[in-house]
Amino acid sequence: MHFALRSSGLMAAGLACRAAASCRARAPTFHRGSLRPIHTPVFSATAHFCQSKQRKDYALPNPSWSQDMVAQFNRYMEMTKDGTWKRLPSYRNFLDHMPESMVQEHAENGNRENRMFLRNTDEEGKGFEYVMFVNSSEKKMVCVFQPGPYLEGPPGFAHGGSIATMLDSTLGGCAILAAGRVMTANLNVNYKNPVPLGSVVLVETKVDKIEGRKLLISGQVRSIDGETLHTEATGERSTVLQA
Amino acid sequence: MHFALRSSGLMAAGLACRAAASCRARAPTFHRGSLRPIHTPVFSATAHFCQSKQRKDYALPNPSWSQDMVAQFNRYMEMTKDGTWKRLPSYRNFLDHMPESMVQEHAENGNRENRMFLRNTDEEGKGFEYVMFVNSSEKKMVCVFQPGPYLEGPPGFAHGGSIATMLDSTLGGCAILAAGRVMTANLNVNYKNPVPLGSVVLVETKVDKIEGRKLLISGQVRSIDGETLHTEATGERSTVLQA
Repeated sequence: MHFALRSSGLMAAGLACRAAASCRARAPTFHRGSLRPIHTPVFSATAHFCQSKQRKDYALPNPSWSQDMVAQFNRYMEMTKDGTWKRLPSYRNFLDHMPESMVQEHAENGNRENRMFLRNTDEEGKGFEYVMFVNSSEKKMVCVFQPGPYLEGPPGFAHGGSIATMLDSTLGGCAILAAGRVMTANLNVNYKNPVPLGSVVLVETKVDKIEGRKLLISGQVRSIDGETLHTEATGERSTVLQA
Repeated sequence: MHFALRSSGLMAAGLACRAAASCRARAPTFHRGSLRPIHTPVFSATAHFCQSKQRKDYALPNPSWSQDMVAQFNRYMEMTKDGTWKRLPSYRNFLDHMPESMVQEHAENGNRENRMFLRNTDEEGKGFEYVMFVNSSEKKMVCVFQPGPYLEGPPGFAHGGSIATMLDSTLGGCAILAAGRVMTANLNVNYKNPVPLGSVVLVETKVDKIEGRKLLISGQVRSIDGETLHTEATGERSTVLQA
């Protein structure tokens, strides 16, 4: 196997950029409508570094976010205040997630014109709108997800592949959190109820077990009121031996 | 469950439009470079119907297709000549796959502005480039797939979610072929080797067993020379009782 870091790339990237994740924990709370911060964010030197690279962080509210989406964002942002949870930034290109020291390592296969699969649409709100939060001590990751109209499977509902994609990415984040570099070995998805386009769901994942180089992880996609289980999944990842 | 036809929507659509599928079996062979037909297609009345709806069929060669992609397309098109295999057309909107008689049934949830998840990018070659072929008598479906640079997971490779999406759609087509309307119950994917962006792979699926309302299906993603097994998957679908 010539390859170090498979589909977990998105989350790997988010987690790798610890400096950015740290600065983004200061991201402000938003009210839908104005979509303006209700407190003045205090930008650190790290934040300035993030901005200076002129990469857009897509894991922040935009006008396409519904009231439910903004409310969930704010709820988790509240939980970042004591450091238990952290918001992960999300950029369009893989390399933008990397601190400079790691870019060189991935430059061979990377291409600035490529786009992360989950950030491949041009218009806000049309594709994957999401923000991920990580709880390191509990090895949990949550994704607040609003599927847009370009993710359609059957009329009015998200394609099962888009749900699998969101689960794969969030489960991958969990595994990386626990073990560093990993490769996906298995993704097993049980579909219970379809997810309507434009709705907001929570993708909740956790590490269940670590057996040597093997990590067992699991997750669910639920409605924000917790009443509807849309999808559940288990996954297996293998850690990658460092050179 | 309020829902009739889950993530198999894409293939369901392709299969539902039997008239279109039939007319498209006459699609001509292409040479890369000119991308012009090497024989003059004989358009039937059905083909005219397809054209009159002014929907673009994305499952035909375009300049972004590599030599390998065009060669695989031509190989399977050859096999359509005796009627064993048929090419499935592919449109951007779900409702465009439907014959007029079925559109009304799905109009409630359908929206002409929505896009099928696998056809959601604007530029040719950037997202999912693919064409599916179906063998009804053997209950098999094959997808020739060229992942574009907007499907990136880790640098230079297709996101695992995009591979799961392609498998889900092709497996779904198999199930619909065998049993009509189905719902996805499970998708279980084992990742073996990552798929490089811009490469061409074959997604080969078949129906393994039908047990009452339950269908067991399986598939693999392989390199075109058959030497590399990238991914394998099993799936379970349930038939939907007609009202």
